Amino acid sequence: MPDYQQIKAELEGIAIEDNPNLVSRKSRDFYWYSPILKAQLENVTGDLIVSPASEEEVIKVLKVAFRHDVPVTARGGGTGNYGQCMPLSGGIVLDMTKMNRIKEIHPGRVITEPGIICAQLDRELKEKSGQELRFHPSTTGQATLGGFIAGGSGGVGSVHWGGLRDLGNVLRLRIVTLEEEPRVMELTARDLLKVSHAYGTNGIITEVEMPLAPAYDWVDVIVGHESFMDAVRFSDRLAKSSGILVKEIAPIAAPVPYEYFTRHKPWLKEGEAVTVVMVAPHALAPFEALVKLMKGEIRFRSDEVESLRGIPRAYELGWNHTTLRALKMEPDAFTYLQVQYPGPDHVEKVREMTELFGDEVIGHLEFLRFDGAIQCSGLPLVRYTTPERLEEIIKIHEAHGCPIFNPHRYTLEEGGMKQTDELQLAFKKETDPKGLMNPGKMIAWENPDFDFKAGKNFLFKGLAEAGAE
Amino acid sequence: MPDYQQIKAELEGIAIEDNPNLVSRKSRDFYWYSPILKAQLENVTGDLIVSPASEEEVIKVLKVAFRHDVPVTARGGGTGNYGQCMPLSGGIVLDMTKMNRIKEIHPGRVITEPGIICAQLDRELKEKSGQELRFHPSTTGQATLGGFIAGGSGGVGSVHWGGLRDLGNVLRLRIVTLEEEPRVMELTARDLLKVSHAYGTNGIITEVEMPLAPAYDWVDVIVGHESFMDAVRFSDRLAKSSGILVKEIAPIAAPVPYEYFTRHKPWLKEGEAVTVVMVAPHALAPFEALVKLMKGEIRFRSDEVESLRGIPRAYELGWNHTTLRALKMEPDAFTYLQVQYPGPDHVEKVREMTELFGDEVIGHLEFLRFDGAIQCSGLPLVRYTTPERLEEIIKIHEAHGCPIFNPHRYTLEEGGMKQTDELQLAFKKETDPKGLMNPGKMIAWENPDFDFKAGKNFLFKGLAEAGAE
Repeated sequence: MPDYQQIKAELEGIAIEDNPNLVSRKSRDFYWYSPILKAQLENVTGDLIVSPASEEEVIKVLKVAFRHDVPVTARGGGTGNYGQCMPLSGGIVLDMTKMNRIKEIHPGRVITEPGIICAQLDRELKEKSGQELRFHPSTTGQATLGGFIAGGSGGVGSVHWGGLRDLGNVLRLRIVTLEEEPRVMELTARDLLKVSHAYGTNGIITEVEMPLAPAYDWVDVIVGHESFMDAVRFSDRLAKSSGILVKEIAPIAAPVPYEYFTRHKPWLKEGEAVTVVMVAPHALAPFEALVKLMKGEIRFRSDEVESLRGIPRAYELGWNHTTLRALKMEPDAFTYLQVQYPGPDHVEKVREMTELFGDEVIGHLEFLRFDGAIQCSGLPLVRYTTPERLEEIIKIHEAHGCPIFNPHRYTLEEGGMKQTDELQLAFKKETDPKGLMNPGKMIAWENPDFDFKAGKNFLFKGLAEAGAE
Repeated sequence: MPDYQQIKAELEGIAIEDNPNLVSRKSRDFYWYSPILKAQLENVTGDLIVSPASEEEVIKVLKVAFRHDVPVTARGGGTGNYGQCMPLSGGIVLDMTKMNRIKEIHPGRVITEPGIICAQLDRELKEKSGQELRFHPSTTGQATLGGFIAGGSGGVGSVHWGGLRDLGNVLRLRIVTLEEEPRVMELTARDLLKVSHAYGTNGIITEVEMPLAPAYDWVDVIVGHESFMDAVRFSDRLAKSSGILVKEIAPIAAPVPYEYFTRHKPWLKEGEAVTVVMVAPHALAPFEALVKLMKGEIRFRSDEVESLRGIPRAYELGWNHTTLRALKMEPDAFTYLQVQYPGPDHVEKVREMTELFGDEVIGHLEFLRFDGAIQCSGLPLVRYTTPERLEEIIKIHEAHGCPIFNPHRYTLEEGGMKQTDELQLAFKKETDPKGLMNPGKMIAWENPDFDFKAGKNFLFKGLAEAGAE
């Protein structure tokens, strides 16, 4: 056990918190979406929350951590779903939310500290420059920009711009290494892949430069269709209509909308599938024409209700919020998956899976651009029975050419491409020689001989050691 | 022959011009790009230029024309390439350039009169609102917005937004009919297809509402590659990089750039293929990374030259300006084609055609979004020998799955889909019962029995009758 009295003394001047209740609360995220992770990560907690207010303070913390061999797990809003920011080996939870200052706004780009809440950034950007982030997570109200980059992949707006890993969707990251004398590095272009979506395992982000898009008064629209596949075909056609500017397209199968979108229920129709859309105001007329052509019915429009008070925005019905709404109403009934339906026959793949699983796997897609082409990924709700059946559902998807990004795993590789990311591994060797940044998340670091093809789950030994008991 | 003295009297108060030299000059466009059209249309001229300054004046002119059975051919900047605005039966040339007032600018859209020059509109939009048209023709400095809509299809910016026919890329058109009592109609959404790219055969546009995009200080970049196919592969990859914001991607084969882009010659390398690109300033770093990855060399950057005085902008190297530059230097050597290379294997189709024709057909592509997918169309230069060989080259393309939009035909159908557009035909019956709007351009109107499959060219009898001799 590190000498936390000494550590606290060395961190003097920086905000710290060691009340176990508060530390425990800031050591978690939405890992409980997964019954698997819920069991595995329940007792995970850090030892000390440290909240630096500047890059200088970050450097000071990392120096102290290096000296005392204390793990450091960076954290933004804690809105991840697979324990991205949970300190599996305890140690310091580096709360970045005090570093929330916007530094510069230019046409097409912003330079900001990483701890700013995405929605707050978007509000200020719009007010000051008529711009906004190209895309944001559905948790934009709590998620920090740095956390989104370190733990997310895409979101509301990706139907137009693609994802965070696409060249150009992050412009520059400034990071600090965890060494005896921490170094500051600036990454741009293809070098960004070294730290994007690396859960903070190989660098602490202290500054972000992001490209921007024009901010419009997006209109939330919910379109009803008789069947889920009708909604999917409409969504595909809409996504491919380059002239109709939209920011979000999410078809969602019954019974989810009517049963779980409680605030929108008065407008919805029982048994209908819906498509949740965000439309630019100047695109409404062509959008309505397409709805009509595809035999949909507009059930809800945010620009036609008297007040939006108490009604969530469209983006809070999509992405992981869809799952959240179902889980809120029936906590034990559901979990979910993350499915890719590779194009160009993604619609056909969705149809196959829909027919195969019926009501056990309830359709929810997010349309997005992938390598320049329209495609969809899925966040279907799964009626949960056993871990074995969940594994089986995953295997059946993969056998049908629909890869799963497993949201029931806390490691980078198992939740991702199921292989070592050599670039990120090499960078960790450079930036974190002692392996103290977010330990247990990068299998390639913990166990270079791990065989991804053997079909076994990685179990981080530090997890058991650091558990409350 | 109509009684033009009487007509002029009835048009009192409206600007008219009947000096035969001036009328003849305002009766032509860039039809001479085509040796075929050059021979056919050489003697075409109107009888009277009428330049209305308002919708009321347009209505007055159309009323007079109806009464006297005089053809009316609307005209903007005269930058079409196939005689779109050339009065095959003589009559009134309706010069729309006096109707150039911008009426309203809103976030995401503009309402304007149709006769405004595109570049002028873009300048004012940028100054007043930081916005610009989503895309414009390479002739933006002379083309009017109304003319672009009536006679064009896409342009600089279509790589991001698609073309004029895509739902949402024109928001509203106000048109006037040619009847005893002309009616004013407003068309939106799918109804716009009735008059878009109809050469003014079924309505005179008097107001336009267009969607807008953010205006950036686009950087012109010319990238060199050893071979044309290297440039094409780079272009395809760039076009599919959704995160890198560009407005134009045009790969052009040697010897065109070095030989005919005379103002850029000091920067170019003999024998190289180039890609002409317009890049958003905030996308330059990721763009450069992609150039490096694809082994290109940046030859020219507009943000790195001391002065742009005398140097054309990138968009004046692409689209029909590429052809223009070759024709200027070697007037009799070249003509051109308009080729579609349907995706997703468009790059492979380009490779096939490039190998098949060698130096006889010199590659020039424009990348664009088509039904939401990245694709390319071609405006290759053709070393012209005989009309028969030109026909043969067309047939070989079509036999290889590369449809030709024939720029050597003056009719809508022969230059387009080679079939009757029932929607446009039906609308003409409604708006132009006497068939006085731009006669000779819509085969389905002139000769309902014309057999498009028989392989014969349509010859408009009015053309011979109205010819100077």
